Amino acid sequence: MVSTPVPTPSEETPEPVRDRPRRISIFGATGSIGTSTVAVLADRPGEFEVEAVTAFGNAGNLARVAKEVGAKVAVIADRNSFETLKEALEGTGIEAAAGDKGIEEAASRPVDVVVAGIVGAAGLSPTLAAIRAGSNIALANKECLVCAGELFVAEARQAGVRILPMDSEHNAIFQALGDNRMEDVDKIILTASGGPFREWTKQAMAAAEPAEALKHPNWSMGPKITIDSATLMNKGLELIEAHHLFDVGNDRLDVLVHPQSIIHGIVAFKDGTMIATMSAPDMRMPIGHCLSWPKRGGDVGLGLDLAKVAKLTFTKPDVDRFPALRVAREALEAGGWATNALNAANEIAVAAYLAGNIGFLEIARLVEDTIADVAAAGFDRTPETIKDALALDKEGRRIATGLIARHTARQPSR
Amino acid sequence: MVSTPVPTPSEETPEPVRDRPRRISIFGATGSIGTSTVAVLADRPGEFEVEAVTAFGNAGNLARVAKEVGAKVAVIADRNSFETLKEALEGTGIEAAAGDKGIEEAASRPVDVVVAGIVGAAGLSPTLAAIRAGSNIALANKECLVCAGELFVAEARQAGVRILPMDSEHNAIFQALGDNRMEDVDKIILTASGGPFREWTKQAMAAAEPAEALKHPNWSMGPKITIDSATLMNKGLELIEAHHLFDVGNDRLDVLVHPQSIIHGIVAFKDGTMIATMSAPDMRMPIGHCLSWPKRGGDVGLGLDLAKVAKLTFTKPDVDRFPALRVAREALEAGGWATNALNAANEIAVAAYLAGNIGFLEIARLVEDTIADVAAAGFDRTPETIKDALALDKEGRRIATGLIARHTARQPSR
Repeated sequence: MVSTPVPTPSEETPEPVRDRPRRISIFGATGSIGTSTVAVLADRPGEFEVEAVTAFGNAGNLARVAKEVGAKVAVIADRNSFETLKEALEGTGIEAAAGDKGIEEAASRPVDVVVAGIVGAAGLSPTLAAIRAGSNIALANKECLVCAGELFVAEARQAGVRILPMDSEHNAIFQALGDNRMEDVDKIILTASGGPFREWTKQAMAAAEPAEALKHPNWSMGPKITIDSATLMNKGLELIEAHHLFDVGNDRLDVLVHPQSIIHGIVAFKDGTMIATMSAPDMRMPIGHCLSWPKRGGDVGLGLDLAKVAKLTFTKPDVDRFPALRVAREALEAGGWATNALNAANEIAVAAYLAGNIGFLEIARLVEDTIADVAAAGFDRTPETIKDALALDKEGRRIATGLIARHTARQPSR
Repeated sequence: MVSTPVPTPSEETPEPVRDRPRRISIFGATGSIGTSTVAVLADRPGEFEVEAVTAFGNAGNLARVAKEVGAKVAVIADRNSFETLKEALEGTGIEAAAGDKGIEEAASRPVDVVVAGIVGAAGLSPTLAAIRAGSNIALANKECLVCAGELFVAEARQAGVRILPMDSEHNAIFQALGDNRMEDVDKIILTASGGPFREWTKQAMAAAEPAEALKHPNWSMGPKITIDSATLMNKGLELIEAHHLFDVGNDRLDVLVHPQSIIHGIVAFKDGTMIATMSAPDMRMPIGHCLSWPKRGGDVGLGLDLAKVAKLTFTKPDVDRFPALRVAREALEAGGWATNALNAANEIAVAAYLAGNIGFLEIARLVEDTIADVAAAGFDRTPETIKDALALDKEGRRIATGLIARHTARQPSR
């Protein structure tokens, strides 16, 4: 076992970073992840070639993005927007397409990396098509792992493609792991900002208005994910994703509240060493990392001065005030059907909370009750196909909606 | 550039950690590093086979260690202690040897890793012999890199062996680097506890008694290195070592004061991401890492609870109060002769301070003056052999001693 002579750092053959542009496709190009991805491309001219960009329904925005990044094809999911897209792209040489079939066809074009930035269940089919086409996946869509994690991990393994986590926490863990082996890992630790209610009492949280829950301290995100940050359900969902991404059980997954959001993820090795990945809280970092992997991007002025940050703090999460963490861990233990139901119920519950129909603390309770009812209805089987996953998702939403209707019937509207 | 299908973590072939024991030798087995190394072996029975253990003059201790680790040979540098060693090992089957030749012969026995724990210039020859024998070096001796860094790096490269840094800071950086390429690195950041005088005024430091400087907040070490911690000269020496270990210039090396000594080193990549290595301040971690590399050690109960640590803080070092940092950076820029002189002068200066002959703030000044005088005397050539390095070291000590004699003649003894 005298180690094979590994070159010292100074010996490494200098390899040109930009031998040829990386070919990428961006699914959900007009959303939050898509917009940040386009910003990364703009920061690094000449490094990328874009095959396809897709969006749900905003043809004008999609055409603008397609022209900006020089895509070969732009696909709009909403067939009614096809003509608008086609007109907007006239004379550019960019192909226009529409509908689920168009999205699927674009996903089937093999590239180096597909940015899976479509939000929600709509992201499942195109991401699976991209995996089957042999493209590595820069995964931002939560549903692939939360609603059908077993399926996606198995498909990626079979296709020999890598799922690159684009979420800042999982990307941090992916980087901290480096070339280490999972068997040497004691714990994978996700950090959580703690959200706007980090220091609130349970009583105050019970009466929290949506406007208060929507004030996220560090990240600027959409309303759904911001509420998930306030309940810590986002961290629960991330525990589930980490389970699939890194093949670790609930017992090796930890959460640490770290309000500064500088350390995004930590790997604690059995030998007592921890490796942590830090950066300013800016999505361009994990996105840039996924796009360049296994290389790294160049200097785009996103460096962090720790002396300016000055202080990093850590506390254990309070599961009593944030029961979503416990509910998510229980779902993770129960299996893929439960995490699917958790996600469905949570979406319904957050919408109900934002509409003023349920209180803040009822979100986690409703999710827990939905999972129990899904099991009671006999749907507790891990989905084996996307069709299964979507059917289960529908069932979870139906049950959660029913529970809310009964709940609001019982008490006066807020 | 569609990446070669890299296995997802879950796919990695489980490889047995202990296929065969790793063969190691421990040079300086009765010193601080040697003692910690023996503790690591005790924590991990069956993982290591010890070829040679060596010590300078304490034959009784050496024999005890040799028996404890089951070494094949024990070598005492001091020829006068040979008989004592031989008697103490009688009937154990452990071979006894003595003198520089004995040490050299032991160093020439190829093993997986040689722990280079001999303190001072005496470590140069045996470490070079071990490199030439094709053993990887777990380097704790500072002098190899500070007094003859160019030589050691070139020899290691030629022999195809790896220099594994055992110092907590460099080991942390080595781990944070992982399989990343140096061309992607923006800065290498060494953390410093700040020492006992972190918050003292310059005036108070001028009058600091040795007993005050010897109170290190986090690490328990010998008097020389503890004074180096108080002046921050230890960090200066580490900058020089990092330069050689990671092939980075002064402009890519930074120091950050971090009083909790939890993060030991940070790599800041050009893409805006930082990777940091953390652990409890315990030498068993970097030692264990070097001994197992490129694998990792198992769980020996050294894990760290960040929620208990609660807070990590960072400030820029104050080069005005700690001029040793500036002096070391200037020496690094000047070349191998200057860092050699810096080390020699610092040893003389620290001894003079501990003896009450010079004040605390005069340590760095004396080092700076010695380097200038060494250059003025025409010794400003990078040492190409160990003989050169030792001659230069001697010259530095002579000049520093002369400067102190003139200094103490000028003013009344403290």
